[in-house]
Amino acid sequence: MIKIVEVGPRDGLQNEKKILTTDDKFMFISKLIEAGLKTVEVTSFVKPPAIPQMSDSSDLFTKVATELKDRASFPCLVPNLKGYETAKSLGVKEIALFSATSDSFTRKNINATVDESFLRMKEVAESAHRDGIRVRGYISTAFGCPYEGNMSVEKLISVAKRFLDLGVYEISVGDTIGVATPRQVETYLKDLIPEVGLDKLAMHFHDTRGMALTNILVSLEKGIKTFDSSAGGIGGCPYAKGATGNVATEDVWYLLNSQGLQTGIDLPKLVEASTFILDKLEKTTESKFLRAYLNTGKI
Amino acid sequence: MIKIVEVGPRDGLQNEKKILTTDDKFMFISKLIEAGLKTVEVTSFVKPPAIPQMSDSSDLFTKVATELKDRASFPCLVPNLKGYETAKSLGVKEIALFSATSDSFTRKNINATVDESFLRMKEVAESAHRDGIRVRGYISTAFGCPYEGNMSVEKLISVAKRFLDLGVYEISVGDTIGVATPRQVETYLKDLIPEVGLDKLAMHFHDTRGMALTNILVSLEKGIKTFDSSAGGIGGCPYAKGATGNVATEDVWYLLNSQGLQTGIDLPKLVEASTFILDKLEKTTESKFLRAYLNTGKI
Repeated sequence: MIKIVEVGPRDGLQNEKKILTTDDKFMFISKLIEAGLKTVEVTSFVKPPAIPQMSDSSDLFTKVATELKDRASFPCLVPNLKGYETAKSLGVKEIALFSATSDSFTRKNINATVDESFLRMKEVAESAHRDGIRVRGYISTAFGCPYEGNMSVEKLISVAKRFLDLGVYEISVGDTIGVATPRQVETYLKDLIPEVGLDKLAMHFHDTRGMALTNILVSLEKGIKTFDSSAGGIGGCPYAKGATGNVATEDVWYLLNSQGLQTGIDLPKLVEASTFILDKLEKTTESKFLRAYLNTGKI
Repeated sequence: MIKIVEVGPRDGLQNEKKILTTDDKFMFISKLIEAGLKTVEVTSFVKPPAIPQMSDSSDLFTKVATELKDRASFPCLVPNLKGYETAKSLGVKEIALFSATSDSFTRKNINATVDESFLRMKEVAESAHRDGIRVRGYISTAFGCPYEGNMSVEKLISVAKRFLDLGVYEISVGDTIGVATPRQVETYLKDLIPEVGLDKLAMHFHDTRGMALTNILVSLEKGIKTFDSSAGGIGGCPYAKGATGNVATEDVWYLLNSQGLQTGIDLPKLVEASTFILDKLEKTTESKFLRAYLNTGKI
């Protein structure tokens, strides 16, 4: 059994130009749950002007928590203590914290160095543990940074260990700009896994250069059992205009299915969720598998 | 060193709606040669009405042979003795013959069973050997057929052996409709390689369902050293409208490069060839890597 963490409603929609209504986002999440997804990242509690796509986070989470209750985990991204307090007040049961391996990246992203980001996150993580809220960690630019280029595995391991120190239950290793290649993933995982533990690792690939599935294939060979993906491949890459973003959940499903691995996902229902949201976004999918499936009506 | 057989001018253009001028095709091939490609499949000697995209085969080959001379191998597809005679009269030095693992497919494609196709090819191959012309063999629907579904590895091995009996120097194993998955490729190659020999095998993947690079990755692990691909990913899939066709040469280049494998291809010059032909076809590329490269101006 492979766990899919669906990040379309957050990482996907956050990188789409078109801003959707809360109702449409809710309907998307609702359909994802129908499709059998057990972890759906709902939103991000940032200051509204920072990311307008996430400005309805409180309303959306409330609707999800009220109407979908405990049908899945609904983690939310939290950038700081203020965001955490909002999330907590709404009854969020799992938060995701994030940093990166690159100082240049965190500076541009959250106006802090990696060190400073961990100072901020420490406060939040301690509060969350005290409040019985689960914490997941995201490492951005794990394989490469738009400003600093290639990132070393030593840097990745050191940031991962700092997340372990924060008491996260899982670390999502993010190829934020889609530069990772299978040989790099294989090499990095060989060193990273013994330091962090297989059961704590999730891989988060972007398909910017079409390498996501090859990277997932070598991750599977290394024993990774959790992957982040975005239904329909929605999202994009702010560092390569017009380029692909998160790997599509359908692509991951197809690869896993072909390898004889189960996900608990009902493909036709997943496709229903994806076509719904793609329609709202007025765009076509970046997933070649999904396109062929929609054209032929079969796997 | 990995050998890339560029099939864009034939397999690619044959599956594009827009019919280009002979000059444009020649310019495309010329730019491919500039990019360092050493084997470029030029055209197909079919009856003109059958495939209008290939109706200028004689003129095109003559121009290529005259102006590009021996700068690369210029194989041409030959469906029968008549096509062979034309090819021979023009000085073609290498031909490609083709059959499939599926009778339903060959019936629809060339109005013959697989057995009958080998009878036809035997005559052509014998003539070619006598005339000192090299022969390559294509096996279509090696992993699956649009009419018969999954194809067995036993069928693939038996057809491959019949090609060996014809005296081909290389067999291109074609995933014509892009249904192969890495596990299947791995399993099939495990059985096929000992029967045919690594040095005689080329893999020909279509990216219809986004699996081409994962399939190439496992093929590389099995020791395969020759791949067919199409610059810019031009072409399409007649069995899934709007779907992707041949894997893009740029995608293959990027994967191989990331694995530390050489191809002798100059990427910027390859991209020049691809953007030229995509422009003539008035379409954008299906290659995510090429798109990111064009957007960011770097690998």
